[in-house]
Amino acid sequence: MFRKTFHVESQREGDFVNITAEVEKIVRESRVTEGLVHIFVCHSTAALTTIEYEQGVLSDLKRALSVIAPDNIVYAHDSRWGDGNGRSHVKAAVIGPDLTVPVEGGTLGCGTWQQIVLLELDVNAGRERTVVCTVTGD
Amino acid sequence: MFRKTFHVESQREGDFVNITAEVEKIVRESRVTEGLVHIFVCHSTAALTTIEYEQGVLSDLKRALSVIAPDNIVYAHDSRWGDGNGRSHVKAAVIGPDLTVPVEGGTLGCGTWQQIVLLELDVNAGRERTVVCTVTGD
Amino acid sequence: MFRKTFHVESQREGDFVNITAEVEKIVRESRVTEGLVHIFVCHSTAALTTIEYEQGVLSDLKRALSVIAPDNIVYAHDSRWGDGNGRSHVKAAVIGPDLTVPVEGGTLGCGTWQQIVLLELDVNAGRERTVVCTVTGD
Repeated sequence: MFRKTFHVESQREGDFVNITAEVEKIVRESRVTEGLVHIFVCHSTAALTTIEYEQGVLSDLKRALSVIAPDNIVYAHDSRWGDGNGRSHVKAAVIGPDLTVPVEGGTLGCGTWQQIVLLELDVNAGRERTVVCTVTGD
Repeated sequence: MFRKTFHVESQREGDFVNITAEVEKIVRESRVTEGLVHIFVCHSTAALTTIEYEQGVLSDLKRALSVIAPDNIVYAHDSRWGDGNGRSHVKAAVIGPDLTVPVEGGTLGCGTWQQIVLLELDVNAGRERTVVCTVTGD
Repeated sequence: MFRKTFHVESQREGDFVNITAEVEKIVRESRVTEGLVHIFVCHSTAALTTIEYEQGVLSDLKRALSVIAPDNIVYAHDSRWGDGNGRSHVKAAVIGPDLTVPVEGGTLGCGTWQQIVLLELDVNAGRERTVVCTVTGD
């Protein structure tokens, strides 16, 4: 098992950060050729998924997330705690914090248009996000 | 590999149960210090995610899930089988049954506001839900 | 670690393919009795989840996905690239490409109504989809 933690600086809500190269680098460092890499973001208002890293489709994803958690409604979380990030928690819980990808031939087994992306969902800008990468295999 | 199965008693649709302490206990029992814990709910109308375990945001998540699977529409599943839980299946499939979290220093590597939560989504109350926990690592 | 890749032929958008038997077969071939099986679809317009494989509930899931990514709106992805599959990318990113299921007693630890399903979400028909299965354990 090989583990490495890295940090992502996000500027604002809706920053979707391509972390594929960072994960790929850790996979290479691990010297695992056939195995799995698990990626986890240790925060309740960020999430991980795979998507084509293209600004058009990223904005389409933002629109989709705003259907289930719109900007302009009252959140019980905000009413109780005044955080203003109720929608951020909801989106993050739906997408989820974890992702596991095959390692094949010492590299990530993602498809060509399938990048690993960290979704910054918090309304409070300028966050440092911690991502834990764990590589297992031979 | 260390495995333990536990059960969660849910009373009704919308019971979101904090299972973090139970998972943490299994991680400690496993004596794994650096590794991963995989959690799986063996049912098609329950799901697992991470979220801040706070009643406000839990009700916000319920509202969000009811946008994609509202109470007041006709489900093809219900028309065919009369189960009345079409919406439960849909929500569970979107959230998913599995979650993998880092084990770091013998404990869960979740963020401070990131609890592991079982979502009871079935309209038929009083279920016992089976959760399988698998800890791997050193 | 035991790995096997297989292919799924999908005919059109909305083909939801039951791959449980294929995964089960790989689990048996691996001779792992207690462990985990990780399943990954290497494409940005397909996804994996568990659901009861019943045509009614599958159509209910399609309806739910069309709430967050409707057919009849303009996608920034399509405007830029003319692919016409903006909605496919969005749905796939929300559901996710990966799934990990317990292996117990040499077989899949899913619930009775919990099948492993590949969601073909692309508007462009007749795709061959690659699925990587990785079994770990004892």
